[in-house]
Amino acid sequence: MANDNTSGRRAVVLLSGGLDSATALAVAVHRGYECRALSFRYGQRHEVELQAARLVAASLGAVEHRVLDLPIAELGGSALTDPAAPLPAGRSAHDTAPAIPPTYVPARNTIFLAFALACAEVTGSDTVFVGVNAVDYSGYPDCRPAFIEAFERLAALATKRAVEGRPTQIAAPLIGMTKADIIRTGIRLGVDYSLTISCYDADSHGRACGRCDSCRLRARGFADAGVPDPTPYAAAPPEETQP
Amino acid sequence: MANDNTSGRRAVVLLSGGLDSATALAVAVHRGYECRALSFRYGQRHEVELQAARLVAASLGAVEHRVLDLPIAELGGSALTDPAAPLPAGRSAHDTAPAIPPTYVPARNTIFLAFALACAEVTGSDTVFVGVNAVDYSGYPDCRPAFIEAFERLAALATKRAVEGRPTQIAAPLIGMTKADIIRTGIRLGVDYSLTISCYDADSHGRACGRCDSCRLRARGFADAGVPDPTPYAAAPPEETQP
Repeated sequence: MANDNTSGRRAVVLLSGGLDSATALAVAVHRGYECRALSFRYGQRHEVELQAARLVAASLGAVEHRVLDLPIAELGGSALTDPAAPLPAGRSAHDTAPAIPPTYVPARNTIFLAFALACAEVTGSDTVFVGVNAVDYSGYPDCRPAFIEAFERLAALATKRAVEGRPTQIAAPLIGMTKADIIRTGIRLGVDYSLTISCYDADSHGRACGRCDSCRLRARGFADAGVPDPTPYAAAPPEETQP
Repeated sequence: MANDNTSGRRAVVLLSGGLDSATALAVAVHRGYECRALSFRYGQRHEVELQAARLVAASLGAVEHRVLDLPIAELGGSALTDPAAPLPAGRSAHDTAPAIPPTYVPARNTIFLAFALACAEVTGSDTVFVGVNAVDYSGYPDCRPAFIEAFERLAALATKRAVEGRPTQIAAPLIGMTKADIIRTGIRLGVDYSLTISCYDADSHGRACGRCDSCRLRARGFADAGVPDPTPYAAAPPEETQP
């Protein structure tokens, strides 16, 4: 997708390499922003997602893709940054997720948004895009609309831009969408989902496990959207996508 | 000072190695918290402050002192993380500081508090202490009471603790104090200010330059408090402390 930047507005886009953030980047580009993608190497066991982020950023026309190293894993407290901890895989993707799963990473989105805010200030960006969504979400407290709104209120006080009357906006364009809505939106905007990785336990080739909660949510999204699932799986795809 | 922890409550204390955060740690210890001190190596030109932080944490009885590496300097945008940029030193310490000085680091306190929040969650701490103060402050937007209040509202939504009804509180006990008040409080609570470093441009021995804004604010604080300034200066102390 060409970066059809006619407005001169700049955005920082948090990009994990997964399905949601790729779509958020496509939305930002579509809205005419000059986009800088921002990813983090934070000890996630699925670090292969950073390769996906690089490909996604390039394919959607981000003018920059920056990867920052963050010392989150050494704090502990999450199965997502602890290779010895089991990943949740027993639930059906059709379950709702009332409890916070062990893949929750303490204060992760607060930390990510804080760095995005710094990056926005330094690059003269008026908006931070983040691909959180609250419908088919994973039970993480920092994916809820109220959290995003609270961060935006914080951002309106936190920076030099804010003091100068140009506070950074936080855009969460997917927050009210189902996974199927997100996929349909991304397809319309030219996202190549075969580049993205959602799996918490992908192999070194970027092939998804097909069993973890994230794989199941994703597979169900493609099924619900009526779109063929382009995900490369290491073994069998999740049952939702099987005929 | 002994850690007289009778309440069983735990706190994370942001500790820079400077005068204010040392006092905030002393206040937290005095209130009976089991304190974990948290510092950051973020490319600050005055990295010698981290040695001060270590000594301060030990002297005040923190049960842990953790130093995390953060990629803030590579974002740019601050004289405090750019050795080539001049530091402000021309103003008198008696000036008010209406403009945001070049030592402002984009979104720094948002980032620091975000990590403190993560640390609080992982360590079961109900409070984060931060030594910001808004009276003799340096014009930084993220030292204002409204900023701290906004972060506390964010914290009440951001974490597993919050969802479980035990949101992390943000305590900024110095926020309404003058520098002299802070020094008097710290002296009363046993802070050894000779261990602390406030200077933006200290030498490798931890000796203060006596010229930068931070040195001048500090020296004026000791003068106003009527307390001998224990700061080791590389050259002459700031004029405010001279007879």
